[in-house]
Amino acid sequence: MSQTVKYLLDEDRLPKEWYNIVADLPRPPDPVLHPGTLKPIGLEDLEPLFPMALIQQEVATDRAIEIPEPVREIYRQWRPSPLYRARRLERELDTPARIYYKYEGVSPAGSHKPNTAVAQAFYNKEAGVRRLTTETGAGQWGSALAFAGALFGLEVRVYMVRVSFEQKPYRKALMEAWGAQCVASPSSETAAGRRTRAQHPNSPGSLGIAISEAVEVAAQNADTKYSLGSVLNHVLLHQTVIGQEALAQLDVAGDYPDVIVGCTGGGSNFAGIAFPFIGAGLRGGPRPRVIACEPTACPSLTRGKYAYDFGDTGHLTPLVKMHTLGSNFVPPGFHAGGLRYHGMAPLVSLLQELGVIESRAYSQTSCFEAGIQFARSEGILPAPEANHAVRGAIEEALRCRAEGTVRTILFNLCGHGHFDMQAYIDFQAGKLEDHAYDATALNSALAALPQVAAE
Amino acid sequence: MSQTVKYLLDEDRLPKEWYNIVADLPRPPDPVLHPGTLKPIGLEDLEPLFPMALIQQEVATDRAIEIPEPVREIYRQWRPSPLYRARRLERELDTPARIYYKYEGVSPAGSHKPNTAVAQAFYNKEAGVRRLTTETGAGQWGSALAFAGALFGLEVRVYMVRVSFEQKPYRKALMEAWGAQCVASPSSETAAGRRTRAQHPNSPGSLGIAISEAVEVAAQNADTKYSLGSVLNHVLLHQTVIGQEALAQLDVAGDYPDVIVGCTGGGSNFAGIAFPFIGAGLRGGPRPRVIACEPTACPSLTRGKYAYDFGDTGHLTPLVKMHTLGSNFVPPGFHAGGLRYHGMAPLVSLLQELGVIESRAYSQTSCFEAGIQFARSEGILPAPEANHAVRGAIEEALRCRAEGTVRTILFNLCGHGHFDMQAYIDFQAGKLEDHAYDATALNSALAALPQVAAE
Repeated sequence: MSQTVKYLLDEDRLPKEWYNIVADLPRPPDPVLHPGTLKPIGLEDLEPLFPMALIQQEVATDRAIEIPEPVREIYRQWRPSPLYRARRLERELDTPARIYYKYEGVSPAGSHKPNTAVAQAFYNKEAGVRRLTTETGAGQWGSALAFAGALFGLEVRVYMVRVSFEQKPYRKALMEAWGAQCVASPSSETAAGRRTRAQHPNSPGSLGIAISEAVEVAAQNADTKYSLGSVLNHVLLHQTVIGQEALAQLDVAGDYPDVIVGCTGGGSNFAGIAFPFIGAGLRGGPRPRVIACEPTACPSLTRGKYAYDFGDTGHLTPLVKMHTLGSNFVPPGFHAGGLRYHGMAPLVSLLQELGVIESRAYSQTSCFEAGIQFARSEGILPAPEANHAVRGAIEEALRCRAEGTVRTILFNLCGHGHFDMQAYIDFQAGKLEDHAYDATALNSALAALPQVAAE
Repeated sequence: MSQTVKYLLDEDRLPKEWYNIVADLPRPPDPVLHPGTLKPIGLEDLEPLFPMALIQQEVATDRAIEIPEPVREIYRQWRPSPLYRARRLERELDTPARIYYKYEGVSPAGSHKPNTAVAQAFYNKEAGVRRLTTETGAGQWGSALAFAGALFGLEVRVYMVRVSFEQKPYRKALMEAWGAQCVASPSSETAAGRRTRAQHPNSPGSLGIAISEAVEVAAQNADTKYSLGSVLNHVLLHQTVIGQEALAQLDVAGDYPDVIVGCTGGGSNFAGIAFPFIGAGLRGGPRPRVIACEPTACPSLTRGKYAYDFGDTGHLTPLVKMHTLGSNFVPPGFHAGGLRYHGMAPLVSLLQELGVIESRAYSQTSCFEAGIQFARSEGILPAPEANHAVRGAIEEALRCRAEGTVRTILFNLCGHGHFDMQAYIDFQAGKLEDHAYDATALNSALAALPQVAAE
């Protein structure tokens, strides 16, 4: 019986540099705009929110950016993460495809998020920051920053979307075990939160609102900075350790992907696995098909508009050019809380505009079905977010079977589902439904996009 | 800043053999007795419950027993598991001690239990068995067997102690995600369960009752065998991959333990880390101090009697010579459900009788305190069971500080706490209490131990 095969890397193969895809793009990304003037922002405008080292990474054009040794030392606790050949899943699917997955659930926080959380905590600590604020939806990002904060002795204050806060007390408990504070958003602590609560006393919250709260607190306190878990260039940059390791591991396996699959919420795990391969293609190497998988309920890449938009509901953040559903779009309830953001990383959005990547939307029940099939064959229970990538990879593998074609499929299994068991209970009990988004509300959110002269 | 250091092993260093400590004991273990005749049991008496390959391992005296290649292939998915030098914890404790921990939470089921679950599923599959029954307390063992059953296409039916079944729906959901069935025990499916329910309609269940149910079903169905997650010789045998890997990893680190610490419920993770080192000592090598850490609420090694006793409440199992609190002892409520068994592995018990190991009991609040300290320094949130080992290791490290002595401490971090978050919530809220066991009930349980002429 053929078994799942693991490809490790020696620790001395842990990447020494992050890969910056901006260096290889055929055109530079559009500038970030100031929320007040709608003009291109200066680096100093971002200083209330981020330490200068991260701001410089946000606008960097160098291809390689050195990973500080203290960050690599912490990465080594779980990195290089394993790459697996999913032989049991291949047999189950009766496919000629070779399926590989990179498993990021081995981090202490259980997802890819610590790759950037540790880096961000390091640079903030270096800059003398005492406290970090952030938002979290499903809780993977909040957990990761809580973990990183514990290692660097930074206070961490997490604004957690209220509906998740109430549904997922164990995520809050995990953050608190690492010493972080976790607050339901909208809270009464911030003007943005109070404004929302006044208008919607029973607001379930949203990532956009929680970001407004975290940004407001950071902007108003000199010892506090803000930390974002996805979307921004420097966050995607930090995640490229995933794809760089996968390149080296596939080299050991003597293989190279024809298809790369990742799930997309803000875009960071997708970028992490895909950018190093895309970059190799842009520099003249082989060009795998690259597929972003998102939920039908929050379809920024497949239904959003490519336009300038705010990152938050309160319009406190700068504007970026991205695929967006509009900053006041609220998706219907579904269980992949990490994929509920209205926008998409500008770099991922630009790559779709350039025709370098494709995107697809899947219903949540079809994703949970894929997740259960994966768990029974490969033994790992994926996070609901990761199930979208599993779904996409299985679809590609079944296409190989139908066509009788051998292809190499690589996907990123960005986290485990240990803190998402209620979703699996609901799915197994047949209680999960596939709610369509409200098309009228989407049109109205898109109509309300800011008018930017630069476009 | 010194960071936690990981010691991996190349996959070709994955042990090829399990280590059988019986070969190195100064005297043979006492025989297993038949529950009806109280005479030494024949191998054929165990055939209704176990496949012959496992029965032969139960009585084997060879030092090395080959690990079948299909089992090693599955082990490779997460093994060799990492050994860590806990430098951040050392700094936090300001201790001159060198603290190492072997981390078994990297398995898909999140604990050391798959080391034996996979082996047991393999041998049962080879023997043509269609279904396995077992019991589970906190759920780690049930999860592990569900995982292994999924890989080998075996049906798995888990009798889960009712109080845990109700308190931990997510554990049940995990087992079901892998395709196993999970039943609250006492159930109405078995004579043992019905008897208990008739006497105690609101019975919260116990491991002893759940074992009776699982054994009964296996004994009465030709296509069904029983699987136990601890206590028995063959289970401890399978866990010795842990200690063998640790030996090799410490060799890479250029170190050797002065003190080895493990938590003990049935004894399997403790045996797994300690037996290869104890064996080396029995064969003339260095003899580390070896410390078994158990809960004060269920203190089989520190307060139990070394005597023949049944493995279950219904007295369906054979009798073994062990440290026992009596098969009808019911511990007070506490959160390390994996450490609630009335007995202790015969091999671990014998080693204590021989003066080779020591034992200590800790209150649950002191263990959770240690677990939180560990999480904040090392980043990994331990299972409540594992917190006992963390507590023991910290005590030894603080002793080194007080004495100004450098010692090497090795402990087994046998699993993560992702499915035990309610316990952490209760602890952080100050709601955990340290209930003493009922001394009168213990005396009565000990007085009711079976009278065995052989003693």
